[in-house]
Formats: sequence, structure tokens, C-alpha cells
Amino acid sequence: MAKIGKAILLIGDGLGDRPVAELGGKTPLEAAETPNLDRIALEGENGLLDPIAPGIPPGSDTGHLALLGYHPYEVYTGRGPFEALGIGMEVRPGDVCFRCNFSTVTDEPARLPEPACSLAGQGPGLVVTDRRAGRISEGTKELAQALNGVVIEGVTCLVKESVEHRAALILRGEGLGHNVTDVDPHEDGKPVLESRGLDERSRKTAQVLNEFVRRSFKVLSAHPVNAKRRELGEPEANILLPRGAGLAPHLKPFSDLHGFAAAFVVEVGLVKGIGRYIGAEVVDAPGATGGHDTDELALARAAAKALERQAFVLCNLKAPDLGGHDRNPSLKIRDIEKLDRLAGELLRLVPEDALIVVTGDHSTPVSVGDHTGDPLPIVFHGPAVRRDGVKAFGERAAGSGGMGRLSGSDLMNLIANFMGAKGKFGA
Amino acid sequence: MAKIGKAILLIGDGLGDRPVAELGGKTPLEAAETPNLDRIALEGENGLLDPIAPGIPPGSDTGHLALLGYHPYEVYTGRGPFEALGIGMEVRPGDVCFRCNFSTVTDEPARLPEPACSLAGQGPGLVVTDRRAGRISEGTKELAQALNGVVIEGVTCLVKESVEHRAALILRGEGLGHNVTDVDPHEDGKPVLESRGLDERSRKTAQVLNEFVRRSFKVLSAHPVNAKRRELGEPEANILLPRGAGLAPHLKPFSDLHGFAAAFVVEVGLVKGIGRYIGAEVVDAPGATGGHDTDELALARAAAKALERQAFVLCNLKAPDLGGHDRNPSLKIRDIEKLDRLAGELLRLVPEDALIVVTGDHSTPVSVGDHTGDPLPIVFHGPAVRRDGVKAFGERAAGSGGMGRLSGSDLMNLIANFMGAKGKFGA
Repeated sequence: MAKIGKAILLIGDGLGDRPVAELGGKTPLEAAETPNLDRIALEGENGLLDPIAPGIPPGSDTGHLALLGYHPYEVYTGRGPFEALGIGMEVRPGDVCFRCNFSTVTDEPARLPEPACSLAGQGPGLVVTDRRAGRISEGTKELAQALNGVVIEGVTCLVKESVEHRAALILRGEGLGHNVTDVDPHEDGKPVLESRGLDERSRKTAQVLNEFVRRSFKVLSAHPVNAKRRELGEPEANILLPRGAGLAPHLKPFSDLHGFAAAFVVEVGLVKGIGRYIGAEVVDAPGATGGHDTDELALARAAAKALERQAFVLCNLKAPDLGGHDRNPSLKIRDIEKLDRLAGELLRLVPEDALIVVTGDHSTPVSVGDHTGDPLPIVFHGPAVRRDGVKAFGERAAGSGGMGRLSGSDLMNLIANFMGAKGKFGA
Repeated sequence: MAKIGKAILLIGDGLGDRPVAELGGKTPLEAAETPNLDRIALEGENGLLDPIAPGIPPGSDTGHLALLGYHPYEVYTGRGPFEALGIGMEVRPGDVCFRCNFSTVTDEPARLPEPACSLAGQGPGLVVTDRRAGRISEGTKELAQALNGVVIEGVTCLVKESVEHRAALILRGEGLGHNVTDVDPHEDGKPVLESRGLDERSRKTAQVLNEFVRRSFKVLSAHPVNAKRRELGEPEANILLPRGAGLAPHLKPFSDLHGFAAAFVVEVGLVKGIGRYIGAEVVDAPGATGGHDTDELALARAAAKALERQAFVLCNLKAPDLGGHDRNPSLKIRDIEKLDRLAGELLRLVPEDALIVVTGDHSTPVSVGDHTGDPLPIVFHGPAVRRDGVKAFGERAAGSGGMGRLSGSDLMNLIANFMGAKGKFGA
């Protein structure tokens, strides 16, 4: 096979949108000033992309997995593993992972409802009085460290704090299943539940989980951080309540799956975690904040630099998703104009014969404020593409492009094909 | 999740068509006067729909199943269950159902071919002399009642007449398979066949079926309806010949599958039966005849009323399919203009923020006179859609729409996405 080309996939997080009345029925992308993206569209081949399937609203995790060639319906069993990856934990295939809250519970009989159908085997039941422990903002690192590394029935329990009251828990051991019911009752005033395993492999997981939760109550209740909170009259973070169990999947490394290596120049911890998990080089761009104030030119420079080392670079700008979640059209327009400057800098910096693909991981319409299943515009720019006469980069312009409507599961094959990295299937 | 919106799916039965020479190469839909449908297309987002897959001609049953999110290749094993549903029988998951003919057979040796490889175990074989029993039009209700409720080897046999010589048979019992060969030889002058079970569970079905057919010959031969037919010199309806075995599938209720409830405002028994089977509210609209003379405005009013009660309404106008089967372009045009008036009334009656989707369940080109696998135009109309500049509702205009080419299996996800009823998959 000839030498493999270079490709960069630029993702505007949450890029897609719906018509906005105050923009005269245009979408934020259509209303934004995007001379660089429009040039890419004019010189490129355009289409619409369903990251997972038409009408299915992707998460940031499932969306990226799908675009990278990993079928989310096969590999995604729950948020836990991706939450853990997102805060920088080292996750291994077979780990059972949970999202957690530091919460406040009480075992005072007066506060207990009757009958207390609570976590068994610990005498009086436990009732949640504040699932977020007063949105605790300090001391969670110390609390997590006090639980991290506990071993129960040969299973290692790894804990790491995230922002505010949030944390992640990994259970690492042989043959653990992830089909366990939650201990978190998801509501204040309700008893902490006893987890049950829904299959043979998951029964052990549930046993360990229940014991871990009981232990967290003992350890955290006695922790100096909570002594101080009691003094200050703040709700104690006296238990860790896991939920959203998921099995860390066995994912083929990116380079084995596609035949070339990847670098990730991305802002969000979750996407960085996915990158590390599939063996990509994960690059930290200085000045990339993941916010509206991020330095998009720094991202472009880091991506162009990474493309010198690797055949493929994924670059994700988080800002447009924030504008969408904020339901703020003018903010999202400004975020998209950042994406445009990022694209312009890439055009300037990367070799002329490199493939540049621009799209999003999901739509986050400002009219909705959350992810939806609307398709994304996508454009392929490089010497091999069939220019199609589309003149601007936008949801509707892309709909008349030469690529038609594409599925995320085909994206890496389309990219690899243009890179000359796709071996013939057959003779 | 935010409040779920409302959606109405308007299906012109057999709507799609091919170019017709006498219409100057236009399709009936393109030639018809459809100001309301054109307005919906102009204000909406358009595309082409393959109900099952490109080139696959759907039946009314498989087409509707596919559009409603049930994969026909997984749930459809034969026409029997849907024939039974269509004539108003109560079908239960696990039932083995057959289409049947009341037929005329003889056991006179002179009429028997040599060798008579006929239904075994009943002495002389039986030969079909008229598969439709002279297209019997009266007395089938009494004949069906004489067989209905027979129990053979613990299996209950339920029989109900349909139009003319047609009927349906349900075998209800534990662990019955549906892989049985037909007893109906499908040709006059041929012996009635012995059914064989093609797998373990189906061998019992075949035994019961053979015994049921033998019994039908005894019971019907002795029935007063046939005594009268003998007097009048008409062919006796002296046997019931089942064919087209199918297993009634375990279908998830519509509201469990999609997260919101449905009402069906439809004219055809078969589609009503599907609605009942998946737990939809099935509404009878007064004045809806299912023919060319149906009251389309009554259908619209009933659909708009139903939309006050349910989040989702399926409304089917049968007429265009009839025009197609009749191979009559001007008739089909008139039928489509009925659909247009129905759509106009819906625009007037349903809330402005409701999603209106218009398409068909299959094409019935007047040049063919039967269902084909040509795609259907589809339009989505509501505040969330991306208007695409398509100016009329028609097969070719829709092909340049922003939705691209869609599969029926994605339709309910697309609708749910616009309704705000689709939860994020992932984080």
C-alpha cells in the first residue's frame, strides 16, 4: 500500500442546532460569521451525519465512541467507566465502575421511616438527608483518599473525587458483573438501598458494593473533614453513594482497529479519558480551558503539531456545546466563530494534502438546552474529495451535499479511505 | 425531561407511485392539486422513506410495523396473525394463526388422482374441486361458529369468517411452533395435503392442524348451510383449508417501546388490529368507509380529537392504495386530493406546535397495480424542523429535501426526537 496520508477530525462539541426565531429562522451555525468553515465547505464535499442513528441523542461519550468506530450499543453498559476515565482514573477492561455522590445520611431512629427497607446488616437503617452533602466543595480529595485502595473479598476499591460532591468508584477484581441495582435511592428522605446482583457474576459485585458503602459510612463519619463540617454546621459528607454501574469494555486499541495511530487534542476530561483508553496520544494544549474563554488558536497549533507525529488527530472544541446548554444563541454564535478561527488556523498550519473533516458529536439546540438526535453537518476537505457545489457550512447547506446522510459508524472508514489507509476487502 | 410534545403521523396508504405517461410523466401525487400538502412541504423538512428497506415492497402489515418501530424481519413470521387481527379476532402472543379458505372437496374415488398422496388417516383422500367454494357469500358465519372452540389434544381452535370464502384460524396452546407445511394445495384438482411440522415444536402443530382439517370436513359436510347449497346446486363449503401459518409475536407495547401512548385513527381492519395488539387506543371515525367515498374530514376531526388525549396519533387514509390497485391514475389523483383535504383540516385543528409528519406505508403505482419497493416522500412539519426550501409535496421534490433518505426503522426515533421524548444515550 502507498504511504498513508494525514487527517484531522475537528469536532465542534454540540455543534448542530435547530432554527432559532430570533435569528430569523437560521441556526446559530448558519447565523455565525464563518469564512473559514465556508471556504472548507466550498472546496469540500458535504453531508449530514447521524453520530449514532437518526433521532438518537448521543452523549459526549457515546457520540465520540461512535465517531471513532466503536459501536456504543455493543460497548457501552453505563456511565461509570467513562465518568472514571473523565476524571483521569486509570480504568482497565473488566473494571466495574460507578458514578458516586458524597452524601449526607443519618442513622438516628427518629429520622427513619417505617419500615426501614434499608441496606441490610448494619443495624439501624440509613436515610439520605442530602444527596449532595451541601454541595461540598472542599475536602473531597481527602475523603476519597481515605477510601481509596480498600480491599473487600479480594476486590480492590478505587475512589477519586470529581467536582463538588461528585466522585467515581472502580471495583477491580476477577469476574465481576455490572448488573447490580443502585444503593443510591436518588431522592432525599429515602433509605439507602441494598444493592442486588441481577446475574451470577453480579452477585459478588453487589456484596462488595454493599460492604464498601457500609465501610464508607464508618470511615467518613470519623474523618477530620467531617469533624470540621460538624463544627461549621455544614452537612457531613459521611457516605459515598455509587450509581450507574458500567463494565469497562474491552476496546480494540485505535491503531489496531484502523491501522494508524491517533492523537487527541481535546478539552473535556471525558474525551481525554476515552483517548487514553483506546491508546491515543492525549495532548494538553496550553490555554485550552474547555470554556467560552478557551484559546482556540492554541488548540489549532497543538493539533497541527500532533499531526506531524501521528497520522490522525481528533480535535474537539467544547465551547459550542456550552452555548447550547446555556440556551444562548448569541453565545453559541460566538463559540462557533471560535471554531471557525480554529479551522482557519488549521488550514494555514497543516499540509495542503491533509484531509480536514469538520463536524460535531451531537446537536445541542439552544431551543432545547440539551443534546438531541438531529443530524450534524459534516464536510470533507482534501485533494481526493469530490467538490459538490455547497457554498457554506451549515445544517441545511450540508443537506444538499454530495455525501448524503452518513452514519457515525462509517466515519473512520470514510476518513481512512481518503487517507489511503484502507486495504481492499477482497481481491 | 421537559414536557413531551404532540405528533401526528398521517399515512396515505399506497401513496407512492411512478411516472405515468398519460400524466405527462408525473406521478399521481405530482399531478394532483395538493395546496395543503405543498404548504406543509414548503414549511417543513422533506426526505424519502423506505418503510422496510430500499426495493422491498412492504405489505400493509409489515409496512406499518416497520414505521412503528417493530422490525418486520424479526417479528413477522407469516400473514396468519395479522389476518386474524384484521378481522377483529383477539390474538395473543404465542398463538399460531392461519389464513383459511372455505373450499369444496370431494372424497369420491372416481375424482381422486392416482396415487392419492392426500391427507393421511382418513380412508380415501380428499381432492379440492373449488378452493373458493363458489365464492360463497352467505352462511360462512354459521360455518365458522360450528368449528370455533374445538379442542384437539389440549389445543383450542378458534375460527372466524372474513369476506366471501375467507376465514382465519387460531391454534392456541402451550409451546406450538409455526413451521408447518400447508394443507391447502393452492390449486383445484389437487389432493388436500398432510401438514408436516418442520421442527420439534411444530410437529404438534401439524398433528392438531391435520386433525382439525379432517374434523372440519366432517362437521361442515353435515351442516345445514351446505344442505341448502346442495339443494341450490351450489358447491358445498365442506372443508376449511388453512395456509400461511404465522406465530403471533411478542411485541413490546407501543408506550413501553417509545415512552408515550398512541391512538390509531385508521380505516383498514388489519391496521386497527395491529393498533390493538400493541396497546394503542383504536378510534372509529364515523363516516370513514375505507373506500373512495370516505369522509376524510371526519378522519381529520377524529385524529385531532385523539391528539388531545394521546401524545401520538397515527392516521391512515386507505383510498390512494385503492386507486393504485385499480391502475386508475385519475382515481388515485382524486384519492390523493382527499388526503390533501385531510391534511388541511389537520393544519387547522391541531396545535401549532404539534409535529405533523406525512408519508405513506408503501408505493402502489398505477402502472403496476400492486405494492412496490419504491420510496415514499416524507415531510416533517413543526417548529423544530430545519426548513429546506422544498416547495411541493411529491416523490421527486422530496428527494432534494434536507432529511435525505430515511429508513422506516428510524421514523419513530426521529418523531420522538422532535417531540422531546428521546432520552440521551450516554452522558
